[in-house]
Amino acid sequence: MAEPKENVLMEKIVSLCKRRGFIYQSSEIYGGINGFWDYGPLGAELKRNVKELWWNTMTRLRDDVVGLEATIIMAPAIWKASGHVDTFSDPMIDCKTCKGRFRADQTDEIACPQKPSKCVNECHGEKTAPRAFNLMFQTYVGPLQDDSAVAYLRPETAQAIFAQFKNVLETSRQKVPFGIAQVGKAFRNEVTPRNFTFRSREFEQMELEFFIKPDEVIEAISGSVATVPDPGHPGEPQPNWGWQAWHQYWVEERVAFYERIGLSRHTLGFHVQTPEELAHYARATTDILFKFPFSKRDGQGELKGEELEGIAARSDFDLSQHQRCSGKPMGVFDDELRTAWGKLPKEKQDDLWRRYCENRKKYLTKTGVTDEAATKQATEDANGLAKGQYIPHVIEPSAGVDRLILALLTNAYSDATKTDEKGKVETTVVLKFHPRVAPIKVGVMPLLKNKPELVTKAHEVRDLLRPWMNVFYDDGGSIGRRYARQDEAGTPFCLTIDFDTLGEKPELLNTVTLRHRDDGRQERLAIGDLLTWLLPKIR
Amino acid sequence: MAEPKENVLMEKIVSLCKRRGFIYQSSEIYGGINGFWDYGPLGAELKRNVKELWWNTMTRLRDDVVGLEATIIMAPAIWKASGHVDTFSDPMIDCKTCKGRFRADQTDEIACPQKPSKCVNECHGEKTAPRAFNLMFQTYVGPLQDDSAVAYLRPETAQAIFAQFKNVLETSRQKVPFGIAQVGKAFRNEVTPRNFTFRSREFEQMELEFFIKPDEVIEAISGSVATVPDPGHPGEPQPNWGWQAWHQYWVEERVAFYERIGLSRHTLGFHVQTPEELAHYARATTDILFKFPFSKRDGQGELKGEELEGIAARSDFDLSQHQRCSGKPMGVFDDELRTAWGKLPKEKQDDLWRRYCENRKKYLTKTGVTDEAATKQATEDANGLAKGQYIPHVIEPSAGVDRLILALLTNAYSDATKTDEKGKVETTVVLKFHPRVAPIKVGVMPLLKNKPELVTKAHEVRDLLRPWMNVFYDDGGSIGRRYARQDEAGTPFCLTIDFDTLGEKPELLNTVTLRHRDDGRQERLAIGDLLTWLLPKIR
Repeated sequence: MAEPKENVLMEKIVSLCKRRGFIYQSSEIYGGINGFWDYGPLGAELKRNVKELWWNTMTRLRDDVVGLEATIIMAPAIWKASGHVDTFSDPMIDCKTCKGRFRADQTDEIACPQKPSKCVNECHGEKTAPRAFNLMFQTYVGPLQDDSAVAYLRPETAQAIFAQFKNVLETSRQKVPFGIAQVGKAFRNEVTPRNFTFRSREFEQMELEFFIKPDEVIEAISGSVATVPDPGHPGEPQPNWGWQAWHQYWVEERVAFYERIGLSRHTLGFHVQTPEELAHYARATTDILFKFPFSKRDGQGELKGEELEGIAARSDFDLSQHQRCSGKPMGVFDDELRTAWGKLPKEKQDDLWRRYCENRKKYLTKTGVTDEAATKQATEDANGLAKGQYIPHVIEPSAGVDRLILALLTNAYSDATKTDEKGKVETTVVLKFHPRVAPIKVGVMPLLKNKPELVTKAHEVRDLLRPWMNVFYDDGGSIGRRYARQDEAGTPFCLTIDFDTLGEKPELLNTVTLRHRDDGRQERLAIGDLLTWLLPKIR
Repeated sequence: MAEPKENVLMEKIVSLCKRRGFIYQSSEIYGGINGFWDYGPLGAELKRNVKELWWNTMTRLRDDVVGLEATIIMAPAIWKASGHVDTFSDPMIDCKTCKGRFRADQTDEIACPQKPSKCVNECHGEKTAPRAFNLMFQTYVGPLQDDSAVAYLRPETAQAIFAQFKNVLETSRQKVPFGIAQVGKAFRNEVTPRNFTFRSREFEQMELEFFIKPDEVIEAISGSVATVPDPGHPGEPQPNWGWQAWHQYWVEERVAFYERIGLSRHTLGFHVQTPEELAHYARATTDILFKFPFSKRDGQGELKGEELEGIAARSDFDLSQHQRCSGKPMGVFDDELRTAWGKLPKEKQDDLWRRYCENRKKYLTKTGVTDEAATKQATEDANGLAKGQYIPHVIEPSAGVDRLILALLTNAYSDATKTDEKGKVETTVVLKFHPRVAPIKVGVMPLLKNKPELVTKAHEVRDLLRPWMNVFYDDGGSIGRRYARQDEAGTPFCLTIDFDTLGEKPELLNTVTLRHRDDGRQERLAIGDLLTWLLPKIR
């Protein structure tokens, strides 16, 4: 029975988070509010680092992705177009006896509020039939509280990207293939928030919508679409990539990202959605999982993992929906396509035309229009190819920040036992964060706080490093205790300024002791070399 | 009549923001949503830079401030305690004829929806008496939509800091004086959003709550409270600073921040709130203003400016309110005070006790408790001094991100006219951002895009710089046009890779032309020196 051990690990993590200021319950002094969590000083830095690394990796280090920062409240028509108003819901039943409202699919898990020994399913209260309960938080914008003023808190950041697609395209000198990235809060009124911060009601997402040419367009331009490469990273993007190569590329890029911040491949799992699981418009979705202690197990008793990120090939569904619902054209003009099309043999044109038309018709008939209207519109859309026009498809790597933070904490958590000078065994915690995400990069410590020369020198070291990284200055207690405090905060390096630094051993003048968190190893480094030693490790 | 000219400037800025991807209207393809604005690729980078600079200045570069990242939705009891539920409202009237709702103080500014030639005040529709309209957006958390499920979107980030004060204090190894900083979204259901992004319904704040000892405690420990220094920055914090010195310190620190990002002092204004303007608990508030084109004018016709940031000395009101409303102690224990108190002469103790007691009583009577209850509680509070206990006071520098972005855009905006080779006069825009905030730090340009050697070298330069700063690679069009595009984006430096870079003039091998945005000046720099030249300018 591994179950209890894993509960213990989660309890230890929750307790450490509170004790060291990573995560607190929101509004704790007022009894808390279910499903909301605040990040304390260490947690806020950890989260900033993760978001910053994502942003730099996804936008600043690439030529083909730009950023966006849209509002949380948007026009409600957006959520009508995206399908969230109609279908983003859980089935709920009401109990007429206790007035409770429960998720219909959880009635045999949840205890009856009046008779907690029984589950809701077993109690005698009369229940209503299941009804759809929308998970979007609703509010009113403007002075009047009527239907015309209803608005929602965004349940995902993605839709703003689609809604602003044309504005970004027209103002950023990008052309397809290119992506738009966004980091920001999203809200879902989860009926049963659980697993600490894993499923909460207010959370943060890091989403990329990467717009690509439809396969028919690739074929028209490049002659053929690249065959799906072998497993693994397909390498630098190529002009003949269709959606499958792009999808595989982004899955591997995202795994590489997790590896770079300390989640090695064996801590991750993968779930390739089956045709039954896929949304009707999706061509493929691969979920990257992390093996959380509370994950379900497979037949062999191995943790399967829970979703950190989903990478979905969403066809041209999103832009098509917004084009249809807003009446604004969402297609692009591609000069290369127009030129290439003109040079294609008639049979090839006809073949591509027919396949593009079929795909468009498949989409259109699912929107509820008549077969006749769908055929007419799809024909018009396919005729656009010759003019260089099409609606881009999209690959969407969509990650949850809070889940990733919890994964990083879980992955880093490590109990250590130490025997002190008096033979007493002490249990301490070491958070083995990758230096790139560690909230504090380096602890700076004068050996003694009552020696002004040591303190002055330690301040110098602090001030040298601080413009480049988060530094914690600590002069309280024994060096051993100060190391232990930094181990618990996940600080990868500690620097001690001692009498040798001041030249007691002349050959050690202006050197400091650098102590490694994970193995306690110590080495001596010149102050002048610190930045060049540290910077490559934390960036 | 300067009015039209200034409207023109605002119109130019709004138009540039849309055209270059700084700011778009939210949900534009659906007709927009009033009071909500999205930041496009350049705007998102500009905003990130500003928030990052604030965060680094306020937390990472200081030992005495830590960060927090709390949720937008919190327990509603917090907004009861803060006063927002009861008093954060505008007076509104309803028109029974047109069913419109209007701010009672704007009825002679706003046009009647049915007869736009008349203002609401003049039309004949029957109006209701003014009623308080709360500006907080309201929603429901959890599956039931009843009174117990009501929650609000935070109208400010400050309250989470007060609510988590004790958690942060206990987990961060800080002691008073110290601060907690937070950056994040806030929401106000403004009846009349206006002036572009200046007054919008969803906005972002950067707030610091800096907790200090009450003056009586300073006096007990240090013998006296520092007299208010002369105008200007009072220098490094001292142990004998009371609230006045700390308030002045933070005003000057914040002005220094604005100066460092390009808003020189003469672009700013100051407003010291009069006793009538101050909130009842506030001791002083200084607003830092920026002279926006739409600002009101003083008697001399000079722009007075609109608020960018308020720096308030809020006494111990906030923590006291949360202590009273949550029943959780918000005071701190200060060993230095306890020791010092024991050594004070009896008269001094009595004097400080009496003054502290009076201040506490002044606060308590305003909460509506009886005089007797207030006296009892204030006595108890003042008795705490001897045990080293008190409730910290707070200085709050509270800045609006979006207003600052608009100020930076306004400040940077500059029309330039150029005469091209054919004698044609062209008007171009130069955004003279300080390099620290500029969304793109450097444009990298191969002289010609069809010379692979130039392109390869340009890619090398791009890849060298990109890990350290946001780079825009541009190979399209003449160099002049590429410079003009970067001028309009506010990019301070452009680098051109030409044949000399490749060694056509051997003495110029591996050098590039660096072109300055503001004066068009050009100089030649070695590629190997670029980072050391650029980094100090952009950080």
